[in-house]
Amino acid sequence: MAGSTYGNSFKITTWGESHGAAIGVVIDGCPSGLPLSKEDIQFYLDRRKPGQSRFTTARQESDHAKILSGVFDGKTTGTPISIMVENQDQRSKDYGRIKDCYRPGHADFTFDAKYGFRDYRGGGRSSGRETIGRVAAGAVASKLLEQLGIKLTAYTRSIGNIIIPEEEYDFSCISENQLYMPNRTYAKKAAAYLEECMKNKDSAGGTIECRITGVRAGIGEPVFDKLDAALAKGIMSIGAVKGVEIGDGFLAAAALGSSNNDPFYSQNDQIIKRTNHSGGTLGGISDGSPVLIRAAIKPTPSIAREQDTVTADGENTSIVITGRHDPVIVPRAVVVVEAMAALTLADLLIVNMSSQLENIKHFYSR
Amino acid sequence: MAGSTYGNSFKITTWGESHGAAIGVVIDGCPSGLPLSKEDIQFYLDRRKPGQSRFTTARQESDHAKILSGVFDGKTTGTPISIMVENQDQRSKDYGRIKDCYRPGHADFTFDAKYGFRDYRGGGRSSGRETIGRVAAGAVASKLLEQLGIKLTAYTRSIGNIIIPEEEYDFSCISENQLYMPNRTYAKKAAAYLEECMKNKDSAGGTIECRITGVRAGIGEPVFDKLDAALAKGIMSIGAVKGVEIGDGFLAAAALGSSNNDPFYSQNDQIIKRTNHSGGTLGGISDGSPVLIRAAIKPTPSIAREQDTVTADGENTSIVITGRHDPVIVPRAVVVVEAMAALTLADLLIVNMSSQLENIKHFYSR
Amino acid sequence: MAGSTYGNSFKITTWGESHGAAIGVVIDGCPSGLPLSKEDIQFYLDRRKPGQSRFTTARQESDHAKILSGVFDGKTTGTPISIMVENQDQRSKDYGRIKDCYRPGHADFTFDAKYGFRDYRGGGRSSGRETIGRVAAGAVASKLLEQLGIKLTAYTRSIGNIIIPEEEYDFSCISENQLYMPNRTYAKKAAAYLEECMKNKDSAGGTIECRITGVRAGIGEPVFDKLDAALAKGIMSIGAVKGVEIGDGFLAAAALGSSNNDPFYSQNDQIIKRTNHSGGTLGGISDGSPVLIRAAIKPTPSIAREQDTVTADGENTSIVITGRHDPVIVPRAVVVVEAMAALTLADLLIVNMSSQLENIKHFYSR
Amino acid sequence: MAGSTYGNSFKITTWGESHGAAIGVVIDGCPSGLPLSKEDIQFYLDRRKPGQSRFTTARQESDHAKILSGVFDGKTTGTPISIMVENQDQRSKDYGRIKDCYRPGHADFTFDAKYGFRDYRGGGRSSGRETIGRVAAGAVASKLLEQLGIKLTAYTRSIGNIIIPEEEYDFSCISENQLYMPNRTYAKKAAAYLEECMKNKDSAGGTIECRITGVRAGIGEPVFDKLDAALAKGIMSIGAVKGVEIGDGFLAAAALGSSNNDPFYSQNDQIIKRTNHSGGTLGGISDGSPVLIRAAIKPTPSIAREQDTVTADGENTSIVITGRHDPVIVPRAVVVVEAMAALTLADLLIVNMSSQLENIKHFYSR
Repeated sequence: MAGSTYGNSFKITTWGESHGAAIGVVIDGCPSGLPLSKEDIQFYLDRRKPGQSRFTTARQESDHAKILSGVFDGKTTGTPISIMVENQDQRSKDYGRIKDCYRPGHADFTFDAKYGFRDYRGGGRSSGRETIGRVAAGAVASKLLEQLGIKLTAYTRSIGNIIIPEEEYDFSCISENQLYMPNRTYAKKAAAYLEECMKNKDSAGGTIECRITGVRAGIGEPVFDKLDAALAKGIMSIGAVKGVEIGDGFLAAAALGSSNNDPFYSQNDQIIKRTNHSGGTLGGISDGSPVLIRAAIKPTPSIAREQDTVTADGENTSIVITGRHDPVIVPRAVVVVEAMAALTLADLLIVNMSSQLENIKHFYSR
Repeated sequence: MAGSTYGNSFKITTWGESHGAAIGVVIDGCPSGLPLSKEDIQFYLDRRKPGQSRFTTARQESDHAKILSGVFDGKTTGTPISIMVENQDQRSKDYGRIKDCYRPGHADFTFDAKYGFRDYRGGGRSSGRETIGRVAAGAVASKLLEQLGIKLTAYTRSIGNIIIPEEEYDFSCISENQLYMPNRTYAKKAAAYLEECMKNKDSAGGTIECRITGVRAGIGEPVFDKLDAALAKGIMSIGAVKGVEIGDGFLAAAALGSSNNDPFYSQNDQIIKRTNHSGGTLGGISDGSPVLIRAAIKPTPSIAREQDTVTADGENTSIVITGRHDPVIVPRAVVVVEAMAALTLADLLIVNMSSQLENIKHFYSR
Repeated sequence: MAGSTYGNSFKITTWGESHGAAIGVVIDGCPSGLPLSKEDIQFYLDRRKPGQSRFTTARQESDHAKILSGVFDGKTTGTPISIMVENQDQRSKDYGRIKDCYRPGHADFTFDAKYGFRDYRGGGRSSGRETIGRVAAGAVASKLLEQLGIKLTAYTRSIGNIIIPEEEYDFSCISENQLYMPNRTYAKKAAAYLEECMKNKDSAGGTIECRITGVRAGIGEPVFDKLDAALAKGIMSIGAVKGVEIGDGFLAAAALGSSNNDPFYSQNDQIIKRTNHSGGTLGGISDGSPVLIRAAIKPTPSIAREQDTVTADGENTSIVITGRHDPVIVPRAVVVVEAMAALTLADLLIVNMSSQLENIKHFYSR
Repeated sequence: MAGSTYGNSFKITTWGESHGAAIGVVIDGCPSGLPLSKEDIQFYLDRRKPGQSRFTTARQESDHAKILSGVFDGKTTGTPISIMVENQDQRSKDYGRIKDCYRPGHADFTFDAKYGFRDYRGGGRSSGRETIGRVAAGAVASKLLEQLGIKLTAYTRSIGNIIIPEEEYDFSCISENQLYMPNRTYAKKAAAYLEECMKNKDSAGGTIECRITGVRAGIGEPVFDKLDAALAKGIMSIGAVKGVEIGDGFLAAAALGSSNNDPFYSQNDQIIKRTNHSGGTLGGISDGSPVLIRAAIKPTPSIAREQDTVTADGENTSIVITGRHDPVIVPRAVVVVEAMAALTLADLLIVNMSSQLENIKHFYSR
């Protein structure tokens, strides 16, 4: 209930602030026998690492993952996996106005309202660095899902109004451009748009999509822990996300039933849907089609322009946020969306193991 | 984990199928001393009752709520509140093709995939009647929030492409039209559109908004149980919902930081935001502005047209769904969205009571 | 958190007060496909029914179980099973002093302290009738465990100082005597002792044992959800229980390591323990030996003697509790202990299905 | 569900194995504003440190606590507190027979049965070192309770058959003897008994008591999360505990109602119990009297004698466990019992804040 734990069967607890000693996660409920190395985790952490392009902050953070428990002889033991990343940037410095002013669009005001005071260094717990724990855990969940033939692919669908039409997706080029967009041309357009934003001391938002293939029908627990409901929570819990869609999402609200329904057909003893407007769930349970999730990311709230605000004492003032800031959060959030989707799916997949008495009997007699 | 429980501190467990003996909910964690009568609950149930307009099914269900426990001398006792609605329509009848065929857009296939067999009568647990428990519990949560000065207002924002612009909202007329729309003219347009849908043996979707006023800053638990994340789960867990937005939602993804940030100012010792693009949360914690949630509802999957599908044995076939069906789910879902929002907020509001040591000390010394 | 929910994967929520409209339970997470009838539940409820002997209250309560949801065509559907027992004894009557006085040994004072007021009719939620929900749910859990070859046997080990030595147990006669004791001679001695208690307007306590056979090694989750820890909670949550032991329990505290350790040996490819001082768990995980639990039950607090107490207003006074009351709770609690043990084991058995990656892979490829 | 998380509102997650890189705990839900330093935690860790007497192992472990997050400017921030202790003894060494044999009384066999393989180094996750996380978190919970005037005192009540009668308790000398016994004479007798055990290559068990004063009436959640039930789980989850009692415990089973009931009386506007057989709870809710818990600890399973056992391959063999081992676990477990009691109470105390509407209204209007 305290908010830093996610999942039930495959459960993670994250901890750490932007400028504290370290940041980390404890994964509890990961089955024994999964091959796991720190390189597996580093690979995912590197995807969210800043300093990779001119649209992400230049701070040279290394973010090296250490596995402190739960792995023996290269395999998970079934006991909690503790992963830690030490913060490099802990030196005491002048946090200036941030200490006493509430930055618009940030959580400074609400943390103060909730807790009475806050760790103002770099945003404290509300910093984007909090996602390190999610991504490290997501790496483990993805590894587990991979063993079952499940694959997640996340990418940037749009930056500002530069939206890639679905028919022009080219997944092969996602990791070739710094914005993780599945289309080279649109990636260039988006880069130009971001240049313009930076010039104007402004920032941009965008949308991220995540597709999951290999998901068998039956995952998701009616009525509150539906697969789509759980995904919505997981994705919306990421800092800058303001909207979540499954399948056609808001477009479905304007569609007709006759076109929105996905007809079933049978082929090679498999029941398949001709279309996938539903985005892979029916009644909150996976239907065997790819699961499709979309997230709306707001523009980076830190901008170089002067903005009106108040001090903690309630005095009207204005603030200019100095230092380098990403003009867009989207590319760095791509792997975070993927991580939350993997964690959610791994959890509900395990829960589904006991949906039928036959499965329990089969397991118990093994 | 089993899926029928929602919330932690203010926790509900729903049960019941469309054509079983009854449907109900157990509310655990409601504080003692809240005045509560069955009329309080009936008022909310009546808002989702079918047979109220030509756009909702004509079945004359009465849906009378009984309170079986947890209330004594007109007040809640602090122990579980059990509320039950007996199903009127239990007679055995011919369920025809539904028994063996998978209706497109419904959960027939996925329930079979998950559980090995299903209660095919009227959709069983995946029926819209499942929401009776949510709405009854939502009535209690709303009553609790009302005591704190918190008010929820939900309404239909759009049907198909008939979208009411925000500046034309007239909340006074919401309950005067059968579509629960806050604008008479748009309600008429939407009614005409639905007539057309029915003529075409088709159905429509739409969007629902819920505004919550009186929410003080500080509610929501970083990092996974954020107020917006919890709301997203609650709303997305409603049957036909395919998308959820907070504040500007997907529009924020296309906005600039300079316009999306809400500047703070101080007035009469209160810190307020000049705009509310954020929809009442910052960093997942309520910021004192009205909380604004939006849900996308897909078109009713039951349509009178012939549709391609398969039998449970995997034979390709087609189905025509007979009987009366609402051409749109939206108006009946309005109160369900409001209920889930109330339940989510009540839960996190209670959790927030222990965020500061000072509050615990104050409570313990009372 | 609110206290009326037990278990995670096999989860129950109970509700109801002594003299409210009804009492019941919702079981969520029971797998689909389990044959279940109301007779299965009635059989367990009858074991706790009062009016069966002169040591249990003469009130003629019928306690008929109704299954309201979750069962279709004689089998569980995987959705919540709602079971209700209507209270017969709801007529308004004069509760006399109980309304304003705190009965010693009862929860009257603490309920008032916690909730500010209470449902004083027959003890309200703190009445022994609250266990009806536990027992009904325990019947379902036992049915599930039975399908896996797991059998629970609970019985009265002692009443007052009349303790049956383990070597004189005769399980065949448990249900032949009204005290559920596994020895006819001791049952007679105990009956005589209870007669004496009644003559003296006094009451007695006793101990209950529960043995579970057929439990394979591996069940229980280190480090907090150990099988013995979970059992301890489940058993201690029963009204009058003041102590819980696993295996040798408190005797182990006085034993030597050389005699308390159970040596392993191998026979027919099975690893077995020569003794079972541990009571079937090692490190909180089942070890393949029978699980042995013991509970201490305090004497019935309602006695016919005058006792010192206070009124709710803090006035010193004395009270004589009128009406018929059991001179001992133990025999009626036997099935409650068994129910809690079954619920606990069913829950942890399901959780254990995902302890190894191999099991998950095997399940997912079925 | 995965087992390494304890509590709901004040929630801890422990991680780490005996010979892994480190051991630790994450505390989530600790309120903001609690003064906390690493010395506060070290003080508790030192109480469980080995090498303090000839009855505890001579290994020179330092067990230095580091606080990695959740504390800023000397106070808790309300966000997760991560505490880590690095293991000193990680060098690879010859684990000899332990690698392939199952030590009687240990969890070697059951971990293998559950997970398919195990970290055999020093017992892995089933080692007593696992309690470091509990004790570190217990230090924080105790600090919180201290602020409310609640004090916990734990001590050794008996070693083997050397039991201190309650009337001879002298709490002032608990920390003056290496066995943490509240009586010098009995401590000497117990020391002599342990010498004898060591001479005989044997080990002893004992009992631990914990008294909690300053607990106001009203804490504990009917019906499953009762204060005594929650304490029973917390205490029984400690490695070697085989029994738990509240108040008179098993003695109550042999008592008469007339003597077991605690009469109420009123003094200075306070309602008090004349006796405390109940151990501070009635109906599972604190009654304002001191809470009294007792735990039975089994003898150390590691003894220097030859014992029969089997190899992992099921071959019958015998084993002599080499190395130094404590002849008794009890003194080192005293602080662990205290920690689990503090964690349990802190959690339920917070939950109780919302039991009455009046409290919620009061909080919300502050």
